[in-house]
Parts: sequence; C-alpha cells; structure tokens
Amino acid sequence: MTKRNAPARTLAKQGADTIRASETNPPVASELAGSALDIRAMPAEGRVRAVIENIAPAVDDGRFPIKRTVGEEVVVEADCFTDGHDALICLLRWRHESESDWHETPMRSLPNDRWQASFRVESMGRYRYTVVAWVDAFLSWQRDFRRRVEEADIRIAALAGVELIEQAAARATGDDRAPLAAWAARLQREQSMAAIQACALDAEATMLALRHPDRQWQCVWPDEYVVWVDRELARFSAWYELFPRSAGDNGNHGTFDDVIERLPYIAGMGFDVLYLPPIHPVGRVRRKGRNNQLVAAPGDVGSPWAIGAEEGGHKAIHPQLGDLEAFRRLVAAARSHGIEIALDIAYQCAPDHPYVAEHPAWYRHRPDGSVQYAENPPKKYQDIYPFNFETDDWRNLWLELRDVLEYWLREGIRIFRVDNPHTKAFPFWEWAIDDVRRNYPDAIFLAEAFTRPKVMHRLAKLGFTQSYTYFAWRNTKQELTEYFTELALGPGREYFRPNVWPNTPDILTEHLQFGGRGAFIARIVLAATLAASYGIYGPAFELMEATPREPGSEEYLDSEKYQLRQWDLSRDDSLAELIARLNQARRANPALQSDRGLHFHPTDNDSLLCYSKTSADNVVLVLVNVDPYHAQSGWTELDLEVLGVEPERPFQMHELLSGARYLWQGSRNFVRLDPAGAPAHVFRLRRKVRSERDFDYFL
Amino acid sequence: MTKRNAPARTLAKQGADTIRASETNPPVASELAGSALDIRAMPAEGRVRAVIENIAPAVDDGRFPIKRTVGEEVVVEADCFTDGHDALICLLRWRHESESDWHETPMRSLPNDRWQASFRVESMGRYRYTVVAWVDAFLSWQRDFRRRVEEADIRIAALAGVELIEQAAARATGDDRAPLAAWAARLQREQSMAAIQACALDAEATMLALRHPDRQWQCVWPDEYVVWVDRELARFSAWYELFPRSAGDNGNHGTFDDVIERLPYIAGMGFDVLYLPPIHPVGRVRRKGRNNQLVAAPGDVGSPWAIGAEEGGHKAIHPQLGDLEAFRRLVAAARSHGIEIALDIAYQCAPDHPYVAEHPAWYRHRPDGSVQYAENPPKKYQDIYPFNFETDDWRNLWLELRDVLEYWLREGIRIFRVDNPHTKAFPFWEWAIDDVRRNYPDAIFLAEAFTRPKVMHRLAKLGFTQSYTYFAWRNTKQELTEYFTELALGPGREYFRPNVWPNTPDILTEHLQFGGRGAFIARIVLAATLAASYGIYGPAFELMEATPREPGSEEYLDSEKYQLRQWDLSRDDSLAELIARLNQARRANPALQSDRGLHFHPTDNDSLLCYSKTSADNVVLVLVNVDPYHAQSGWTELDLEVLGVEPERPFQMHELLSGARYLWQGSRNFVRLDPAGAPAHVFRLRRKVRSERDFDYFL
Repeated sequence: MTKRNAPARTLAKQGADTIRASETNPPVASELAGSALDIRAMPAEGRVRAVIENIAPAVDDGRFPIKRTVGEEVVVEADCFTDGHDALICLLRWRHESESDWHETPMRSLPNDRWQASFRVESMGRYRYTVVAWVDAFLSWQRDFRRRVEEADIRIAALAGVELIEQAAARATGDDRAPLAAWAARLQREQSMAAIQACALDAEATMLALRHPDRQWQCVWPDEYVVWVDRELARFSAWYELFPRSAGDNGNHGTFDDVIERLPYIAGMGFDVLYLPPIHPVGRVRRKGRNNQLVAAPGDVGSPWAIGAEEGGHKAIHPQLGDLEAFRRLVAAARSHGIEIALDIAYQCAPDHPYVAEHPAWYRHRPDGSVQYAENPPKKYQDIYPFNFETDDWRNLWLELRDVLEYWLREGIRIFRVDNPHTKAFPFWEWAIDDVRRNYPDAIFLAEAFTRPKVMHRLAKLGFTQSYTYFAWRNTKQELTEYFTELALGPGREYFRPNVWPNTPDILTEHLQFGGRGAFIARIVLAATLAASYGIYGPAFELMEATPREPGSEEYLDSEKYQLRQWDLSRDDSLAELIARLNQARRANPALQSDRGLHFHPTDNDSLLCYSKTSADNVVLVLVNVDPYHAQSGWTELDLEVLGVEPERPFQMHELLSGARYLWQGSRNFVRLDPAGAPAHVFRLRRKVRSERDFDYFL
Repeated sequence: MTKRNAPARTLAKQGADTIRASETNPPVASELAGSALDIRAMPAEGRVRAVIENIAPAVDDGRFPIKRTVGEEVVVEADCFTDGHDALICLLRWRHESESDWHETPMRSLPNDRWQASFRVESMGRYRYTVVAWVDAFLSWQRDFRRRVEEADIRIAALAGVELIEQAAARATGDDRAPLAAWAARLQREQSMAAIQACALDAEATMLALRHPDRQWQCVWPDEYVVWVDRELARFSAWYELFPRSAGDNGNHGTFDDVIERLPYIAGMGFDVLYLPPIHPVGRVRRKGRNNQLVAAPGDVGSPWAIGAEEGGHKAIHPQLGDLEAFRRLVAAARSHGIEIALDIAYQCAPDHPYVAEHPAWYRHRPDGSVQYAENPPKKYQDIYPFNFETDDWRNLWLELRDVLEYWLREGIRIFRVDNPHTKAFPFWEWAIDDVRRNYPDAIFLAEAFTRPKVMHRLAKLGFTQSYTYFAWRNTKQELTEYFTELALGPGREYFRPNVWPNTPDILTEHLQFGGRGAFIARIVLAATLAASYGIYGPAFELMEATPREPGSEEYLDSEKYQLRQWDLSRDDSLAELIARLNQARRANPALQSDRGLHFHPTDNDSLLCYSKTSADNVVLVLVNVDPYHAQSGWTELDLEVLGVEPERPFQMHELLSGARYLWQGSRNFVRLDPAGAPAHVFRLRRKVRSERDFDYFL
C-alpha cells in the first residue's frame, strides 16, 4: 500500500460540465435550509439543463490534437439533449490560436440526439473547438405554439410569447431592439386567431429573436479540443530517397553539386520531397565495412548513421559532400524544381562524435568505464552510442537535440525524417516537436518507427506529422484490405498519417526479391494510390535492385548504407517513366491526395485487389494484380453508390498509366491483369453527361 | 464571436500524465542554456518514460462511475509501454473510499501492449482505481542478462547487476536489506561463468529485489476512476407491483393491512421487492375519473400519481391506506417474508398539493396567473403540476425533494422507483442520488424513463441503480437478440442495469393483448432469464389481464390507475405457480443472477430463440418460442465452447420448470415448443462426470 495522491483530477471532472467560468462559489446547501444533515454541496448553478456528451473527433479524450491540413474541413459531432421535451440550441465553438474570440456555428440535429457542424481550417497552427448548448425558452415556446389547437390555449400562449419576445428585445443591442419590441407589441395587440397565429410565427421576426437568445444557463463543454493544422504537403507528398555520396560518377564520392545535377531527373518523375540520409561526418572509430562487416577496410565510407567525427557532429556536413554553401545551393536548386530537401535526424553518435568527450553525462557507462554502445542482447551495435534519456543532465541534452533541429531549420529545412524515434523518450518528442512548431508551423516530421502498433500510434499522437507503416509487409489482397481499412477508417485516421514505402535502404522485401518487374510496378501503384503520401528509395527502386545480402535477409547486397554505388539511370527497363505518370495522376486527381475516401470493392479473384478513392466529384478506381507471377482475370463487384454512377448508365474508365479508355456499365466488369505487362490499372472514372454518342462528353 | 473562456482544462491535461504530485516547478528551459529562443517549458520531469493509455473500464473517460455489487470483480486493463525495449512494471492501484492508502496489484501483460489486473469489491460505497507504470532497470538488466552469450559480456553485465542490486538494498527496509546486500556481494565474488549466471538469476533473491523497485520516474495516470458498489439486490432482483387500494375485499378500499395478508402469496411466488405506486393523499382538484375520464364521478378514487391534497403531500400517507403505524407494520411484515418495499417517487403535484400554496415559486405560471399544468401540446394533463426546475428558488426545491427521500429512508425504505426522472433536471438527480448514498449506500433507485436511448443512459450514468428498458416492445427473435446483446455487451454494461417488465400499469402490449397464455408465459420466461432484474405488475400479469381500454391502446380497460379492482387470485389458470418455479430457478442458478455471461446460440427456426447464461460452472440454457400462435420446432446450433461441453460427450439438460431431463449431445439438438403447452424451456446444463451409466453422476 502506498500513500494516496493529492486530490485527483477525477474529482474536478465529475460534474464539471455544468460549471461555467463566470460563476462564484455556491453557498453550502445546509446554510440554505438550516438542515442538520451533512448535505453534499450543490453545483454552483443547478439550472443548466442541457447535456453535452461524446464529442468527436477527440484523440484520447482530447489529450492529443487531431490533425488537418490547410483548407480541410473539421466535422464535429456531439450528443446533446435535455430533460423533458424543450427545444435545444447547440453551437460549435472554434477559433485559431491567434484569435481571441470564438466563432460559433449552429449545429444541426441528426438522428438519436446527435448534433453536427463543421468549420474550415484556413491557417497553419492550432485551432481549438468545443460545444455549447442550452435549452431555449423562445424556441420551445414557438415550437409548442405551432402545435396548439384550442383557441383559449392559443390566446394565452401568445401572451406568454409576448413576454419572451420582450425579454429578447431587452437583450438585443443596436438595430434589433426596436423591431423586437414592436413584434411583442403587435402580438399583444392582435385579436383574430389568424392574426395571432401569423404574428407569433412571423419568420423574419423569429430570425431576429434567435439572434438574442437567453444563454444564462448554457452548458459549455469544459474541454477544448485541439486541431493541429499543417500545410498541404503533410497530407499529400511523394518522397524520393537517395544517397548523395552515390551521386558521383566514375566511382567518385558524390557531392551536393552532383545531387543538383540529378534534380531534373527526380523532378521529372514528379517527386516533391528529396530525402537525404544523414549528411554529417561519419565516425571512424569501429566504422563498419561493406556489407556491414565488423571491420572497415581502408577507404570504406562507413554508415552515414554512425554520426560524428573530429570534423563535427549533427550540425556539421561531411566534407566530401561539400560545404555549407554547397548545401545551400542544393536546397535552393531543389526548391526551383519544386522539391524540398528532407534531412535525416538520427539522435545517436559514433564513438568519435564530439559530444562523447564534451558531454560524457549524456551516455550510459559500463562498469569498466567505457561508454555503453547500442545493444539488444545478444545483438550489439558497437559503432553506435545511444543517448541516455535518463541522464541527470536531461534538460541540456533535450536543449541540444532541439538545437540540432533549429540549426537546420535556420538553413531553410522544414522536413525531418526521424530515425528510430521509438528508442528515445516520448516526453522529449512531445516537447521538441511542439516547440519547433511554435516557431515553424510548416515543419514536418516523419517518424521512422517500425515497431509495435501502439508505440507507432503514440509517436503520431505526440506530434509526428507522418509515419512509416507496415505497408512493405502487406502483400495479399486480405492483408492490404485490412490494413488500409484500418488506416483510413480506424481511430488513427485523426492523427496517424501513413507514408508508405515499398522499399527503403533497410527493407528489400521477399516480395520484391522474387516478384520481378511485375512486383515492383504493383507495389508502387499500391503505394502511390492507397496512400496520399508515399516514397521510394532510389535509384534502387526504379532500377529494380532485388538482390539481398544473403538468402532470408531483407538487406541489400552491397548496400549503399556501407559503400558507394553507381547507378545507370538510363537503363531501358527503368521504371522512371511509369513513376512519372503515376505522380502525374496523383497531382491531377484530388481523390489521390487524401487518405480519406478509400473504399474496397469485391472482386471474384483473390489476387485482384480493387479499390476506389473519391473526393467530391473526383473518382479514381484502382485494380491491382497482387500475384506477381501469373496473369489474373476476374469480375469486379463495384459498389456503384460509392462511385456515384447509376446501374443502367455506362461510364468511361480512363486508364491513367496507359491512356486507354474503356466503357463500363454496372457493377460487374471483366478485368485481366498480367504482371508481365501491366499488373495494375489506375482508372479515372468519367461519367457521361450528355448522350451516349461521344466519349468526349465524359467529364 | 464570444469571449473565450478562462484557460481550459485541455491545457492542463496535455502532458499531464507525466507529472507527479511530488514535483516542484521546473526551471524555464531558457534559464538553463541561456538560449535566446522562446522555448516551450519542459515538463517537470522528463525521465518518465513509461506510457499509460486507454484505461478500461471508464465511463465517459471517468466522468461517471462504473457499477458493481459487493463480491464482484473489477477487471482493469490499460495499454502500457515505453520507448526502446526496456522492461516495464505496471500496477493496478485501488482503494475503498474509506481507506487512506492504495492497494497495488501487479498487472500481467497481454498481447499488443495491453496489461490486466483485477480486484474484488467487498464493501458498498465508492472504490477508486488507477494505473501506475515504470521502466524497471533491474528487471531489464536481468532479462537482458539471460540473453547474453559472450563471456566478456556476461562478466561485465554481472558487475552492472551488482550496482543495481546494491541500489535495491539501499532502498530496502527491514529484513530485506541484508540479504540483498549479500546477493550483490556474492555476485561480485563469483568467478566461474556457471556460478555468475546462477547467482545473477537466483529466483528467490530476484523476488526480494522486485519488492524494492526504483520508482522515482514512475508514471501515475492522473485520473482516478470510480466504482460505485451496491448491495447484491441492485444486480439481482425480482419485483412485484401492486396497487394496495385494490387489496381489499368486497369492493372495499384496500389497506396496508390487506397488503400484509397478501405477502405470503407474493413471497410464495419468489419476489423480493414489492413496489407500491404512490401511497400519498390523492388530489381532488381536477381528479380524473375511471378510464382516465376528464371529470371524476363521486367516489372515484383518482390517480395515485396526482399527489397531494389537504391531508398532505409526498411525506403523507393516504388515510384510506392506513396510518404511519400501519405502514411500519407492512414494512416489517414484508421484511419477515424476505421482501423489501419499494416506494414510488413521482415529483409532481395535484393542484391541491400543499406545496402549491406554500411554494408558488416552485411552479411556472401562465400569463393569466394560473399555475402551468403539465402539457406536451396539444396534449394536456391538467390534474398535474410539474415543478419548475428553472425557478430562482431551485436550491430550496432540491432540498425539499431530497427531504422527501430522507423521510422515507428514515422509515427504513431503501428502494425507490422514480417516476419519469427524464422530465426533471439532470443535475438534480446527480446531486440527490449521490447525497442519499453518502448516508445510505444501500439505497436503490429504479429509473422509470421510457424515452430516447441517450437520455436513459444519462440517468443511469448520473446514479440510477437500475433502469426500465424497451423490453416490452422487443418481441421477435432478432429484436430480442440485438437488444440484449447491446445490454449485456455494449458500453452501457458498466453502468446501465436493466430491469425488464413484460407489463406495467401503463403498458399492456399488443403482444400480450393478442398472444394469450402462451405469450404471457414466454414473456415472463424471457424477462426472468434474459435479465438479472425483472418485474411484473400483478395480479394483472399472473391472471393474464389482456383487455385494452380501446383498440390500439396500451392502456388497460378499467385500469387500476383510476379505480379499485378485485382480483381472484385462486383462479385455476393463474401463472403464480409457474412464476414461483421461475424465481426458484433464478435463486438456484448464479448464471441467472447477473446480466453478464449472456450468449445467443443460433437455431434454424426464426421463432425459436436460444441463449445461455453462464457463471463459472453454472450454465443455464433457455429456449423460447416467440411465436405465441403456433407450435414451432427446429434444431439448435449450440456453441459448445461457450457451454463448456465437449462435442463427443453427452450432457444432461434438466428442465427447471417441468423437472424433465433430456440427454443431449453435440451442437444440434431437436426442440419443439408449443404455446398451448410449454412455450419455453429453462435448462440447467449438467455435465457428465464419471460414466455414461447413470444420470445421477451429472453435476
């Protein structure tokens, strides 16, 4: 048994939804009636009759923000009701953090006491929202008045209305007061039943009265929910990863200037983010050799994730890549191609990183006094020293890690791909990301956490803008359907933005090792159309590099992680052109720019995956043969309502990779997909608008 | 736009789960590093690496208590995890409100980072629970130690262990300190690999060390969740409603003493709650006549729900029923039969209730000065004045309504059936019920709210012990399956305790009007076995009264609500004996005493409903023909795993209403149920334990 805590939050929460900020402390009940009983204190205001429950969306009851991008809609719902049958008014309150006053949007009533309203987020940063409701005496009166049938009843009810309208007039300011007072007087004056009824229900006057409601007993939901609003790239992005040091020719160590020459190629494929593995000096102590050999040979370049050497650490640039000026040239050149540079943030050190000597307290030490390297027994990573987030000096460690980000932010970098964030303390990320965003609301963090689901979700909740996923290992129709249904429709949709990669320098899946060209095409079509954000590690991907270091391994043979590579970008079989068409289709179709609006349609073949994405009028239908070895054919069973087409009217399917057009009708249409040719179709659905005579009339 | 609120709770909540009570304010970050940046304040303690999420059960995120009865188990789960792969320890903290210290129960790890533990509630009143977790350095060390293979590695890890054990020794108090210190010394001394390994993993010493963990960075979930613990009757009860004024003979107004004579009959049927409609003086002003006629004839007794006349109001007794002494005799006599009296709490007044003159402020007034009667236009209830919960004098109104309860509580009444609670302000109920329970934790409130689902659930959340349901209108197999699945498995199961009634004085369903004896039997079997609490309005039910006031109405003809009735309890066709057997079965079978453990089994006939209830070893299987007009037969498709029987072994089905025994085997068994005879079977399942030779071996 341990001592109990100080009064807990639960106490404050219970009954809290009836308390408003303006209220003073209520008298204790027993003071009122002189009762001898020890009576529970009454609420400050007992006449708050409206109830609000179950506001959505809310992540962990509002502990974490939901995420949106500029221009998106936030649809908010709540259960609102009251005792008896009086009429309720419910408002959605919302504001950008820079605004001091609330906007209030009336909520409309849905079935089963659910209410709904929405607002559009127009600026980056934080919005807040909550719900207000009250029992409205005027609205209740008018609704009841409409139902009354007996004359005596109607006459007396009209007089009750006069009182309520006079009260509204008294609350009204400016121009509204006089017409309200006049309405009350008119209602009092009218004699005939018809005139009384017409006057009491006057539509224009009613609108006026509703502008001045009696909100003295309104219920304000005490929690405010936060929306984090990012720029559009947070929702819709195509990433390309390359090792700058492999961009040289003739076996030379590549430089930033070599990467600049590669930019037209990357932009030509339609990517908008160019992600570089760590660009810092690579450690020399216990440097790994080619293919991860324990001892490096002379001239071996080592892993760029073994960060830091005598030339510097996380704020320094590997001298062979270029200097800061070269880096700035690259950033600017990329921008001129519509490409942003993303840097790799790997909070770990090579043994010769300057931090190790300067801040020994930031590392764990073994009983023999040596610095504790990374390990997960029996595995050891002796070239990597992790930071000790339990150090007494944690505040300065946090500040320095934050300062690394600040350094590159000041160089204009806004996108960070964070290496293994799940091996650093969670509170650090929440603090650091929030802090960065206060100054740089356009900053984007991609979490590279290939780990357990709840850990990945926690990182997304804490502030990571996008997250790597299990996509690489979801290959069958059932696996893909289940996983992307969860991503698009599960509770994570409010905060977990998937960024899906068919390959990375660490991940060459069996599917790609054995599936050949058909697998590569199918996988990138899936990535680019199932998720609004995706990426590839190139040129390995477009050149279909498929040889593992050893059987059963997902590591590349001769991996660029440990050595330079030369790539022949002009190979005939390169997928670059297909990728360009794919990214073009993404840019032309809003449906592919959001993770929402995904719907899987049945087919009668377990190798044929069929799904649509819709965004308003824009409908894209994708068919993929997930079997890389055999041609597969079958019939679709389209949900026509989801596609917005009528069963009896034909519609045109415009295949965006080949340009071919097909005329389909109804739910069942035949498809054949051959991995040797085109293992996937990406259709834009065009509905017929005028007549059947000409395809040109399809929109 | 309106002014924004004072700082909202959301701000306090965000990051709150890493803050512990003992911490002081942290320095502002910029003080530490002299940074010019406006840096977000760091948490007080950044080394709290354990994460707790998603604690269940929790009603509306802990805003409301869950409910249990004495002796029940509270199973608590939470998601707990940390960064990296260190080992976690999670504890469930719980205590009764009368205890000042927490009990702590270790949670066990389930798949997917879920943890679970439970505690048993032994006393009425409130319990609280929450979760604590921390990253345990000792446990992590030992788990990693087990995996180490290289000798040098093991030797150095042993030394790291020595440090950790020494720290545990330093934390230890009393007898544990010396053996821990000895363990550390021994581990330091050992030389051989085998000895080091054995010593480091010593099981007994490990238990000792785990008793003194390093909890300096533990994460304490800041919310405490409340369990309201009732006595058993709150979970398991059989109610009988009768009008005392109809208990007389020869057409005389019945008295409490007449009811005393009726007690053996009621106890004989096995009911444990006798609920009386209001026992107070009935208003004379605008009194309703027989069959709800607007004008009463001389001698008409009026509706007992039109409470109050010159003889008194909610604390008075109708003089024709008896005096307070007679009431006390009834309460005592009932108790001696194992029956508790439940009173009706109807917070409304006849026009001649003394409150109307004494407290005019407690009512609304119409513009002509008259008191506003109850209405829902165009319907009027002119004999009833509702209280105005928006009165300026609401505090005194609340105190007086509370005092009505107190009056009857002091008379030993602990069960209140509350009439139309959904037409009174919700905050009143939360306050009043909580206040009553502080002094009378055995008090039980049944909410008679036949209204919209969310309103009914709100009342249950606010504190009502049991709730009337939609059972009366759920008649088909699909309706019953869906509704009771929701009640037993939906989120409401934590707070909404159904009390199901096949009839009430207000509800004579079409099903009973036309279904005849078969319908009455089927409906009471369903009520008594689907729900742990049920009730009937008698003798109308057991005498199968089925004539409505008019076609299409659910009102009884010559309803006891407005007149006296005489009942012939000795009729041959009375269901009293069947009801007695049913209540006997309920008392003998724990499975029928809880709403949990309900499972519906398919049958191949849409009129044959089949379900089981299980509680540990006790299994009851019920089969009901829900078609009151025709015999129905078909095959069960039992889920044998739920029933705990093996497919190849026969089991005995002991029919508890008839006493018959059947031998069944496997999932498919034939059933025929005839509404003209027995429209339902209530089987107790008896598994074979020794051999096939003798039925006596079934348990």
